[in-house]
Amino acid sequence: MSTATGETQVILPIKLPIPAPDRTTSVFSALERRRTIREIRSTPLPAQLLSNLLWAACGINRKIGPFGVPGRTAASASNSQEIDIYAASKEGAYLYDATNNMLSPVVAGDLRASALTPGQRDVAATAPLQLVYVVDVHRLTHTMGFQEPGLQDPEMQKAYYYVDTGLIAGNVYLFAAAHGLAAWFHNCDRTLLAQKLRLRSDQRVLFAQSIGYPETE
Amino acid sequence: MSTATGETQVILPIKLPIPAPDRTTSVFSALERRRTIREIRSTPLPAQLLSNLLWAACGINRKIGPFGVPGRTAASASNSQEIDIYAASKEGAYLYDATNNMLSPVVAGDLRASALTPGQRDVAATAPLQLVYVVDVHRLTHTMGFQEPGLQDPEMQKAYYYVDTGLIAGNVYLFAAAHGLAAWFHNCDRTLLAQKLRLRSDQRVLFAQSIGYPETE
Repeated sequence: MSTATGETQVILPIKLPIPAPDRTTSVFSALERRRTIREIRSTPLPAQLLSNLLWAACGINRKIGPFGVPGRTAASASNSQEIDIYAASKEGAYLYDATNNMLSPVVAGDLRASALTPGQRDVAATAPLQLVYVVDVHRLTHTMGFQEPGLQDPEMQKAYYYVDTGLIAGNVYLFAAAHGLAAWFHNCDRTLLAQKLRLRSDQRVLFAQSIGYPETE
Repeated sequence: MSTATGETQVILPIKLPIPAPDRTTSVFSALERRRTIREIRSTPLPAQLLSNLLWAACGINRKIGPFGVPGRTAASASNSQEIDIYAASKEGAYLYDATNNMLSPVVAGDLRASALTPGQRDVAATAPLQLVYVVDVHRLTHTMGFQEPGLQDPEMQKAYYYVDTGLIAGNVYLFAAAHGLAAWFHNCDRTLLAQKLRLRSDQRVLFAQSIGYPETE
């Protein structure tokens, strides 16, 4: 079993419960309620809600999608699925593994403050969950999908991976609105997070999104 | 009343019906069905569905949002609301005016083929609606919202406006999934569209999204 260590701690993989159908809130109602909420309580999310949230973000919603690859709830350029979500909690940072519906340990310890920037540090870094959006450019340049020239062009790559980040973050915003959760998409300390998450050179930290229960309801 | 002319035609403003609450499909069900569908019938969308679609994309969902500006269904950097949707139909191209819930005429004539690229021209440009995503960089540099340095940095501007495009396009994908519509986000002929839509120098065409009824259902 894989584990990850920090300075003194060890974290284990987290097997997520199967996403459970919750059909109580309509798309229309969620769109009505969609907004950014920055004031977030430190209360952790229950495992089922966390599983549903990550599935909503970019989980697998069909076994066979474009180009024979499993389909996701969020579109991506040539179905490259080049955006990974790293989930940072009080205990450590994990990689969301949609295929196996689990959180794989990356590093133990609390990285949540790095998911904010110095300009945002008036906000306490105590939201229970920071989703950190990381692009793996290798997956764009080696897509299983349609081989179009833009995938090799650094400027077009940017356009693709930022749009694809927005497609996922939009799902998260609507899921949060549907479940009375707070969500806030923001800048983060890209350099520090890239180090701490031990990213490869073709991976880049893009943005982060704070999630939790709203401070006042 | 404003009008727009093409080579021989004139188009008038289209007052959209008020977005009508439709709470039949849950967020969960829409996420289950979310996928890209490229094969689209030419049948136009009814006015009510078109109104709801544009509202879902980036309509106003509260009178007072961040920084005193009306809130939208899609987040944007410092609530700059810098992405405009131009809607191209067989008759002409219109600007979606969320404040007044209308389509303002931009130019008469069918621009839908320009919303595809030469590499995509095996797809007939007959989907009834092309949403063309256009950034107004001036709105980022002159936001009413939080004045952070990234808004003046061309690289961060790109990150913001592409993410913000994805946030809107994600709403469109989920709306389409909820209503049995086909949606396909894709590249477009940026140079030609910028000319035909008579954009200012601080506006840029980014991407387009085809919408309509699926060819086979």
